[in-house]
Amino acid sequence: MAHAKFSLFTGCIVDTPVMGELRILVNGALGIDRSTGRIVGTSESSGTPAKELFEHWTGQQVSEADIETTGLLADQFLMPGFIDTHTHAPQFSFLGIGHDLPLMDWLNKYTFKHESEFKDPELARKFYKGAIDRVIRNGVTFAAYYGTIHLEANRILADTIRNAGQRAFVGKVCMDANSPDYYSESTAESIEQTEEFIKQVLGGQGNCPADTRLVTPIITPRFAPSCSSECLGALGELAKRYQLPIQSHLCENPSEIEFARQCFPECTSYTEIYHKHGLLGNHTIMAHCVHMTAEELVIMRDTGTSISHCPTSNFTLGSGLADIRRFVAQGIPVGLGTDVGGGYTPSILDAMRMAAATNRALIASRRLSGEDLSGRDGVPLEAAEMFFLATQGGARVMGMAESLGSLDAGKLFDALVIDLSAHASPVPSVESTFAISCLSDPVEAWRLRLEQFVFLADDRNISRVYVGGNLIHSKC
Amino acid sequence: MAHAKFSLFTGCIVDTPVMGELRILVNGALGIDRSTGRIVGTSESSGTPAKELFEHWTGQQVSEADIETTGLLADQFLMPGFIDTHTHAPQFSFLGIGHDLPLMDWLNKYTFKHESEFKDPELARKFYKGAIDRVIRNGVTFAAYYGTIHLEANRILADTIRNAGQRAFVGKVCMDANSPDYYSESTAESIEQTEEFIKQVLGGQGNCPADTRLVTPIITPRFAPSCSSECLGALGELAKRYQLPIQSHLCENPSEIEFARQCFPECTSYTEIYHKHGLLGNHTIMAHCVHMTAEELVIMRDTGTSISHCPTSNFTLGSGLADIRRFVAQGIPVGLGTDVGGGYTPSILDAMRMAAATNRALIASRRLSGEDLSGRDGVPLEAAEMFFLATQGGARVMGMAESLGSLDAGKLFDALVIDLSAHASPVPSVESTFAISCLSDPVEAWRLRLEQFVFLADDRNISRVYVGGNLIHSKC
Ligand SMILES: [Zn+2]
Ligand SMILES: [Zn+2]
Repeated sequence: MAHAKFSLFTGCIVDTPVMGELRILVNGALGIDRSTGRIVGTSESSGTPAKELFEHWTGQQVSEADIETTGLLADQFLMPGFIDTHTHAPQFSFLGIGHDLPLMDWLNKYTFKHESEFKDPELARKFYKGAIDRVIRNGVTFAAYYGTIHLEANRILADTIRNAGQRAFVGKVCMDANSPDYYSESTAESIEQTEEFIKQVLGGQGNCPADTRLVTPIITPRFAPSCSSECLGALGELAKRYQLPIQSHLCENPSEIEFARQCFPECTSYTEIYHKHGLLGNHTIMAHCVHMTAEELVIMRDTGTSISHCPTSNFTLGSGLADIRRFVAQGIPVGLGTDVGGGYTPSILDAMRMAAATNRALIASRRLSGEDLSGRDGVPLEAAEMFFLATQGGARVMGMAESLGSLDAGKLFDALVIDLSAHASPVPSVESTFAISCLSDPVEAWRLRLEQFVFLADDRNISRVYVGGNLIHSKC
Repeated sequence: MAHAKFSLFTGCIVDTPVMGELRILVNGALGIDRSTGRIVGTSESSGTPAKELFEHWTGQQVSEADIETTGLLADQFLMPGFIDTHTHAPQFSFLGIGHDLPLMDWLNKYTFKHESEFKDPELARKFYKGAIDRVIRNGVTFAAYYGTIHLEANRILADTIRNAGQRAFVGKVCMDANSPDYYSESTAESIEQTEEFIKQVLGGQGNCPADTRLVTPIITPRFAPSCSSECLGALGELAKRYQLPIQSHLCENPSEIEFARQCFPECTSYTEIYHKHGLLGNHTIMAHCVHMTAEELVIMRDTGTSISHCPTSNFTLGSGLADIRRFVAQGIPVGLGTDVGGGYTPSILDAMRMAAATNRALIASRRLSGEDLSGRDGVPLEAAEMFFLATQGGARVMGMAESLGSLDAGKLFDALVIDLSAHASPVPSVESTFAISCLSDPVEAWRLRLEQFVFLADDRNISRVYVGGNLIHSKC
């Protein structure tokens, strides 16, 4: 596929442009313009000759020789890439460790200690490649990463991601207050190095348009208590000046909330701290939001701020059950985050399942306590909704719903080829699944097959990973 | 290892004879007598010559030629096999499907429909082999299976398991009341066919002692509402006469509890129904027990009845959060169940993680509501406790704590070789895990490595599976 002008995929094509609505083209066709890395069109039937499809999609004359076709096999499908709206690259250094500690103890024993070691750029050079490869292997085409406080290590992280071909937001973490001596910085350092990081990352990519560059710097106060008011204000200014996204943590657990309020007694809520410093808006991602008051949700909605739901992390650190249905009902954009290393896995498939677990546990406990669960509140999150959260929902959280998240014409081709019959697949065969093999309607059959994908698949089923039209990972 | 009299494993050996206490022999040795399939001894150091070890363990003269040695690699360890205390073999036919339905709807739409198809023995012959292989690949050496109501299909299931070399309890499901027309039986059929199934399964294995036979029939009323009082009483009698274990479902969700109480208005609680019919005792496994009153837990404890905690299923079906710490505090034996197809995976590793999630969600919600969480109640389940639940805890639930569950001398060698560096392992390498590579104490390092195993491993890490000393599955 290296030399043709266009690429064509034929076979089953799946996405969820709207939450809960799976769009399944059983015998679909999808065309890509290799020069832009964008989708030129999709069609319901793959019976039409490739040349005709592309001429229809592009309105130009196209020769057969310009088209390279990939035919998907019977148990394969094409879907948008997974979007991880919240993860910490340095924390892969203690993946799967320390999950019996609550947030603040865990930060001190593992997080700060191991993040501080990245003051040595050699370590970053050795370590980040493996971590990023692991994320890509799990089908994540676009991730919002936290780095560390270190300029050089963060630059190496950004380069590593770009070299791997993944799309990412990368943040230099800011910590000029209430942080351990061995892992903190002055207010001036925090601000200056953030700006320096922004210039280096943008400069390295020739200042190309936001939606086509692979790596975008993201303004990253670790969380309100780790930053002075001066620092938060300056970060808000930088975001505005450079038109950059912002990420931080919000209302993860009760003692962290108490800590934040002690640090900013003049603010009426944790959310208000960020709001007051100009850090909320439709390019801001707040992770967790487990314990939000009604007033705080109103601020989120009114500012257009997004929520990264990190269910695995919320379970392991005992943070509590965040209520996605409540966020969605308010019109707040929600996507999924793995929050490695609070979460133990970079798999968005796991995050989908844990989001379902969170939702069902909430429904069960509310039903027990006699709460009214009319409307959507009592309806368990469906596989199609989890699929949306992991793709189009994530794109909206990242502020890139127009360019990513579904397989609509005009969008960038960030996509996965899924093989449910891959070697040693955790998804059983269709033949052994009577519930499917007894169905005659192929769309109905695919619907159940996709439920199995959501509940059972892992990285073994992720055969190929594309970003901006480029193949960045392949099993074969 | 087919011809030697003894087998020796050298390398890291791990088990948890007591809940929460990992026993790690970093340079361990473990000997097996091939003729009995039992462990003859373990030792702290593998420096001693094999001949001397076996002479010390057995008190006999042993020749080097009688010993076949397996040296584990640096990132491998030996552990007891996983025990799945609750699963449904026929429900693998809709694995991963229907998880947005509550229990009673799910039973009617998927469970009864697909289980009823096993009236055709051909289907059982075609289907069960793949399902059992999947369970074994996940490292389950011993499982308590529910079959269907059909004598012939259940016999095929039992044969399939025995031929695969797995250890199991297999139950003919009894449903003579409140069940759909197309999937129910008369009281007489239910009782007679249960007895016929017992005779066939025991007869097929020459009536050998309980702990060495691979497949043991288990008395299986589906759940109280699906059986008449006459049927339940007769099943209690059969269990006593043939000295057999018993399994059923208990207090899974509020509407099921209400249903049970309507069916047996003369009983003061759901638990009391089973108790009154002679079905509780120290060889009885009750699945779920999510919503138990204090009185019911007292009955469980006083009768020595065990609980199979099925956290994945409790999440997917929205049943609620079962409180393991409360069961343990009362002295009620607890193990893990996958409850396929209420649960979507036969992986006990997943069940361990979901047990942790359940426990942490309970702690968080109690803390929020201001409950007193002194003592163990507020302590998150540790990896070592999850390890226990999956092995020795499970053995106790199955009534076989003396013969299985740990790697003590005298026990049957049901064990797994785990390879954390297996091809495409989801567990990262030691080198990339600073939190481990910076440690100098090897026991401490293994302790963290085992946390990673619990939170990240999957069937790819399960290299070899042994039951009764026999290798029944191997990656290579
Ligand atoms: Zn985080
Ligand atoms: Zn069950």
